[in-house]
Amino acid sequence: MEHKPLTSIDRLSLNQITTDRWSLREAVEGSVRADIPWIALWRHKVAETGLAESRRLVRDAGLRVSSLCRGGMFPAASVEERRAKIDDNRRAVDEAAELGADVLVLVCGPAPDKDIAGARRMVEEGIAKLAPYAESCGVRLGIEPLHPMYAAERSVINTLAQANAIAEQYSPNQVGVVVDVFHVWWDPELYSQIERARGRILGFHVSDWIVPTPDLLMGRGMMGDGVIDLRRIRHAVEDAGYDGPIEVEIFNQAIWDRPGDEVLSLMKERYLQHC
Amino acid sequence: MEHKPLTSIDRLSLNQITTDRWSLREAVEGSVRADIPWIALWRHKVAETGLAESRRLVRDAGLRVSSLCRGGMFPAASVEERRAKIDDNRRAVDEAAELGADVLVLVCGPAPDKDIAGARRMVEEGIAKLAPYAESCGVRLGIEPLHPMYAAERSVINTLAQANAIAEQYSPNQVGVVVDVFHVWWDPELYSQIERARGRILGFHVSDWIVPTPDLLMGRGMMGDGVIDLRRIRHAVEDAGYDGPIEVEIFNQAIWDRPGDEVLSLMKERYLQHC
Repeated sequence: MEHKPLTSIDRLSLNQITTDRWSLREAVEGSVRADIPWIALWRHKVAETGLAESRRLVRDAGLRVSSLCRGGMFPAASVEERRAKIDDNRRAVDEAAELGADVLVLVCGPAPDKDIAGARRMVEEGIAKLAPYAESCGVRLGIEPLHPMYAAERSVINTLAQANAIAEQYSPNQVGVVVDVFHVWWDPELYSQIERARGRILGFHVSDWIVPTPDLLMGRGMMGDGVIDLRRIRHAVEDAGYDGPIEVEIFNQAIWDRPGDEVLSLMKERYLQHC
Repeated sequence: MEHKPLTSIDRLSLNQITTDRWSLREAVEGSVRADIPWIALWRHKVAETGLAESRRLVRDAGLRVSSLCRGGMFPAASVEERRAKIDDNRRAVDEAAELGADVLVLVCGPAPDKDIAGARRMVEEGIAKLAPYAESCGVRLGIEPLHPMYAAERSVINTLAQANAIAEQYSPNQVGVVVDVFHVWWDPELYSQIERARGRILGFHVSDWIVPTPDLLMGRGMMGDGVIDLRRIRHAVEDAGYDGPIEVEIFNQAIWDRPGDEVLSLMKERYLQHC
């Protein structure tokens, strides 16, 4: 089966972590200079700039917000802590709604102890508590499975199968999944789980897995610099009905250290070459 | 369900990579001093000492060999390279037989390109070619799924489900699986796949997943220093019929830098406390 390249950047989104040294204002202005139509925002960047001002900057620039990163982090040792986390997630939903982001990305959180199965149940409970509120605000929750190497520190949801099993308990208007190639490329069930997610894919994130991998967190590569079959995965999510924005989300110190305009230029080039 | 601790070290095996600075002779002598009854050998250490001399040292010390590490590395770009890898695996089988190791551990290898599914087929083909020879030598092949963070560099077999699916094509006298907690602890299917492996578990390896994780390769911890529920996993493999040796296999520079006798002493203590 032939997999055709993309011919325009009309679905390209800058996940602003890719230009981590830029403020939200700088990321917005850089995206406009580069003709990139979408942007994904992070809550800590929005907080630095202020919610109302962030909203104004994005709207005035004519950008569309592909997602807000991130809600989640549900498991905790006590009922009080778990309740506080739900409260924080409600605020994240409010911010997403205010910013015009259809999707709040959920990084579901690590276990507070050695009981990973228990932590997974806490994630399910947290999403159950959050979903009705999110729907009432017009924000969908996108469960992003994280690579198993983050199971102890960032999320106990580590496969698309897990994310699908939770999302299927809800209407697609409430909860879906986010497919980030860096987290799922290795999965033997990748293509069957993408197909299973049909109608529930709320986001698609690209980067690459570089070899040798220099670091657990900061080791992501620019598209084309690694071993991931990006185009095949993109076609699979499209075959499963997804035609939304494609976010470039890269944690990599060498990329962060480069001037943002250069990164956006390279990103556009690699997007058309490799995605 | 109560999970009882181990009360003796009669199943404890030193995987010699845990004391990487020791030669095979030193590891054998250290194990004898520490009353550790089993040892797992690495091919490059055996090669340094010589096969016949390694065999003599282990036998004279009265140690039993829990496994030889490692065969595998099956995928390659050309037929010739794949054939050469099978030849090398036959030599690994010969060495395992000579050393009295019942099990050759298979680290199955990375893909030569972006086609991870193709590489997985090459692994299946490689094992199919190797298994009859191994059986004729009295050596069983233990497929060790490696953590997904090693998918690009060490093995495209990343879950117990994959290992089981291959092993089930053979008699348990030919091919089985090796459960290493570091590689599989995160897997949502861990306990169901251990049960599925009943009668085919050929080895059980322990260490720990430390937080924060300092490094992809060298970040393993001593048992008890991390987040893995070691005792629950041990009980699960025992409930699935495994009563063989338990190898301690730790890649960690800080541990490698300590005197070997100290490491063995700590290892015994932690084994009884946490496994």
